[in-house]
Amino acid sequence: MCRLAIYLGPEISLGEIMTSPEHSLLQQSWQPRELKYAKLNADGYGFGWFNNEGQPLRYVFAEPMWSDPNLHDLCKGLESDLWFGFVRSASEGFGNQAVNTQPFRDEQLLFMHNGYIERFNETIRIELLHALPHQLQADIMGTTDSEYLFALTRWCRRQYPEHSLTDLLRQVLDWLEPHIDDTKALLNLTVTDGASVAACRAAFNDDAPTLYFIADDEEYPEGAQIIVSEPLHQSEFWHPVPEFHMLHLERDTPPELIAL
Amino acid sequence: MCRLAIYLGPEISLGEIMTSPEHSLLQQSWQPRELKYAKLNADGYGFGWFNNEGQPLRYVFAEPMWSDPNLHDLCKGLESDLWFGFVRSASEGFGNQAVNTQPFRDEQLLFMHNGYIERFNETIRIELLHALPHQLQADIMGTTDSEYLFALTRWCRRQYPEHSLTDLLRQVLDWLEPHIDDTKALLNLTVTDGASVAACRAAFNDDAPTLYFIADDEEYPEGAQIIVSEPLHQSEFWHPVPEFHMLHLERDTPPELIAL
Amino acid sequence: MCRLAIYLGPEISLGEIMTSPEHSLLQQSWQPRELKYAKLNADGYGFGWFNNEGQPLRYVFAEPMWSDPNLHDLCKGLESDLWFGFVRSASEGFGNQAVNTQPFRDEQLLFMHNGYIERFNETIRIELLHALPHQLQADIMGTTDSEYLFALTRWCRRQYPEHSLTDLLRQVLDWLEPHIDDTKALLNLTVTDGASVAACRAAFNDDAPTLYFIADDEEYPEGAQIIVSEPLHQSEFWHPVPEFHMLHLERDTPPELIAL
Amino acid sequence: MCRLAIYLGPEISLGEIMTSPEHSLLQQSWQPRELKYAKLNADGYGFGWFNNEGQPLRYVFAEPMWSDPNLHDLCKGLESDLWFGFVRSASEGFGNQAVNTQPFRDEQLLFMHNGYIERFNETIRIELLHALPHQLQADIMGTTDSEYLFALTRWCRRQYPEHSLTDLLRQVLDWLEPHIDDTKALLNLTVTDGASVAACRAAFNDDAPTLYFIADDEEYPEGAQIIVSEPLHQSEFWHPVPEFHMLHLERDTPPELIAL
Repeated sequence: MCRLAIYLGPEISLGEIMTSPEHSLLQQSWQPRELKYAKLNADGYGFGWFNNEGQPLRYVFAEPMWSDPNLHDLCKGLESDLWFGFVRSASEGFGNQAVNTQPFRDEQLLFMHNGYIERFNETIRIELLHALPHQLQADIMGTTDSEYLFALTRWCRRQYPEHSLTDLLRQVLDWLEPHIDDTKALLNLTVTDGASVAACRAAFNDDAPTLYFIADDEEYPEGAQIIVSEPLHQSEFWHPVPEFHMLHLERDTPPELIAL
Repeated sequence: MCRLAIYLGPEISLGEIMTSPEHSLLQQSWQPRELKYAKLNADGYGFGWFNNEGQPLRYVFAEPMWSDPNLHDLCKGLESDLWFGFVRSASEGFGNQAVNTQPFRDEQLLFMHNGYIERFNETIRIELLHALPHQLQADIMGTTDSEYLFALTRWCRRQYPEHSLTDLLRQVLDWLEPHIDDTKALLNLTVTDGASVAACRAAFNDDAPTLYFIADDEEYPEGAQIIVSEPLHQSEFWHPVPEFHMLHLERDTPPELIAL
Repeated sequence: MCRLAIYLGPEISLGEIMTSPEHSLLQQSWQPRELKYAKLNADGYGFGWFNNEGQPLRYVFAEPMWSDPNLHDLCKGLESDLWFGFVRSASEGFGNQAVNTQPFRDEQLLFMHNGYIERFNETIRIELLHALPHQLQADIMGTTDSEYLFALTRWCRRQYPEHSLTDLLRQVLDWLEPHIDDTKALLNLTVTDGASVAACRAAFNDDAPTLYFIADDEEYPEGAQIIVSEPLHQSEFWHPVPEFHMLHLERDTPPELIAL
Repeated sequence: MCRLAIYLGPEISLGEIMTSPEHSLLQQSWQPRELKYAKLNADGYGFGWFNNEGQPLRYVFAEPMWSDPNLHDLCKGLESDLWFGFVRSASEGFGNQAVNTQPFRDEQLLFMHNGYIERFNETIRIELLHALPHQLQADIMGTTDSEYLFALTRWCRRQYPEHSLTDLLRQVLDWLEPHIDDTKALLNLTVTDGASVAACRAAFNDDAPTLYFIADDEEYPEGAQIIVSEPLHQSEFWHPVPEFHMLHLERDTPPELIAL
């Protein structure tokens, strides 16, 4: 499980998502409010963005966010118009190493998963692995359900490269549903190619984690759109995303809420 | 690639293998003498032993041995009659995390591999994975050829639990040979169940890493038997193990050299 | 601030203090019950013991106890008749590095401090530093109030090497009292030379942290004596130590409670 | 000891100093060419730059540069017109922690020291410490000679805030010379306030480490000025800095070489 925050809008510093808000990801790392299956998010943190050449990049740290000696300087030194931020609560049995810390990225996409698949190793891990082409199998570096979900997302992307990101998430969920059976699977998935962002709130056999969004908030530059697990500050304008719905963000377009 | 050292004999402190000898594993971490494919062994280190209940245990550290703040106190504080010691030079593409650091262990065995399989991800990784039962697949936590070789060793062990450890290594090599094809594979494998130790010097399509042994050395208690990648000190009594040979150690019995 | 546990008695494994009890230090690292100035003890942990030659040794880890990949194997592999265990909540401004993690040791003593000195850098740090001989100044590797208190303890020890450990703690408090002025100082101090253990519960300008002891508990071998910040399990036999009192433990002697 | 690289010129990515050159700091971390007192620079690395508000920032990593999982993404994601880069070989007795890793910074300056002061703890550490005002004493977080030299630099800066950075380095050396006595002291010091850069090549009782500079190199944008311990690539235009000389860099002005 975890907490995540996504920003799309005019360029801001990393700190405006990670550390400055009154209920920033930093605060959520030791004092989350709506986390259901854990008390803390102290097993690592990370963030993703795109550089000037349009390459997705990520930074990950395998220990508590507050213990990273570089946190505050990176927050002051990095600016971007798109941020993927993450604090992690390791599910039982998934070690806290850099390779298990989100966001994940390949050459085109940033990806984050908030949730978990119950007894992943005994249930769909092997099945999912064998469904992938060899190269995507070999690219998996860690052991988390989240990294396997990213591999599945990449596989769907390769099959239908022209689909929108919301269609991509739909395909991922479509593949999962028949394989999940009666396993609990919490599947808030988020993905971006740098141009648009898709995020879904979904779960099988349990409730999905919370998900909220806001647009044109006065704390942020005009045009800013934000998606979070927990609101970053007090405001009546945070909209909860209903279960089995998706959000689609694009620059200069209002957020779009789509039923799954 | 790496350097390893194995001790079987009267109880000694960990330091007598890891730090005290003139050419200890600590010195081999930054100044190895016979390492072929690397300049350093600075990507982690580890050691294994058995506790009073006969359980195999291990300690691993993912950064250079010399940077572990606990090295010297552990060397003075741990005593055992069997040590498996290891310093690591990460092969290209295998990250340096605790899960990728040797020795490996399960509930019965300690295992170390000195060598590498060329282009492991593109060649036999997937084939080897699919040959394993699901539980052994799921137990793999990292990405190294060495951990997969340990999984294969566990699989052979389950099939023939009554075989000796030297026969076990033979089975592992027998499985590998037809799958390796023309890939370079350096396969110095070592394994112990706490009662006996087996080590082989083998390679396909290249030379095997060096391997030496000594017994009844005057620097160690009477009855000590030691296997190493590089001699721990100057002495004419270090015997090189010929390629495609195995060593079998048991307490109170001289080391046995067996052709593969 | 922190939580600590001290064991003196027949040899037990490290795990019997650190991980096995229902309210072990591991549980106290993420769910302490009586911690006043923090929510967690997730900024490192450590333990100390003496080897067969009577040398004090320590192991420290700068990140959360639960994230140490070696915790459970060390807990099963180390046995001793004296344990000093510690989980840390870093006070604001003191980084979480190995050098700032307790217990501390020199060639003769193990030492732990549970508490803090308010605004240490602005108040007595420099004064305390200048009171020390140069060698003890130079031995300070980190920045915590606790390490300075250990340096002061070493300095008192050098002046009166024949004093008991309880007298030693008294001297340390005597030096501190006039320098502390109206600063809050929480000063639960514990020290051992391997033969006996002294622990005090003391504070100036605030309440001291909790401290408890038990002897001959049925969960531990006969003769065991234990001092803790929080009871390790449910039992009516945990005695609270009153403020401004000290405990003195020796093998084969009941715990002695002494007013300061 | 260490290797350093400084860049001033049109904006480039971090990787153009740290990882891309044929003899980059990354290569110098495991294969330096002109390092006198060490074989490696594998005890950490760091870099410094200024953000859009003109604040000096730094990133430090306490383990080998090659083992930082974030190295390559930071190299692609950070751009600046001024870089301070550093790879560290820890002198005996100075632990490898983030607080001991260069560059250092305060609110105005970035600072790096290439060299060491022999037996620093026994010689001038305490004297230097006591020469500082209390706040600067309290700001010292680690134990290295380099951090104390930065504290001394800050102290000189406070006394003469209007002096140039080259005069500042002169003052630091002037303070040191009478206190150094017959101790070996290698003192290549570098400092920047974001507008200009000063670097000196100096030593007492031994030879100074090497230092080179280049301007208008064809591998870099026009106007680039670079100072390094070892040339980053083959070129006849790297100028060695003579001992007891300083360099002064400013944007749009050729490098100035000044005798000490």
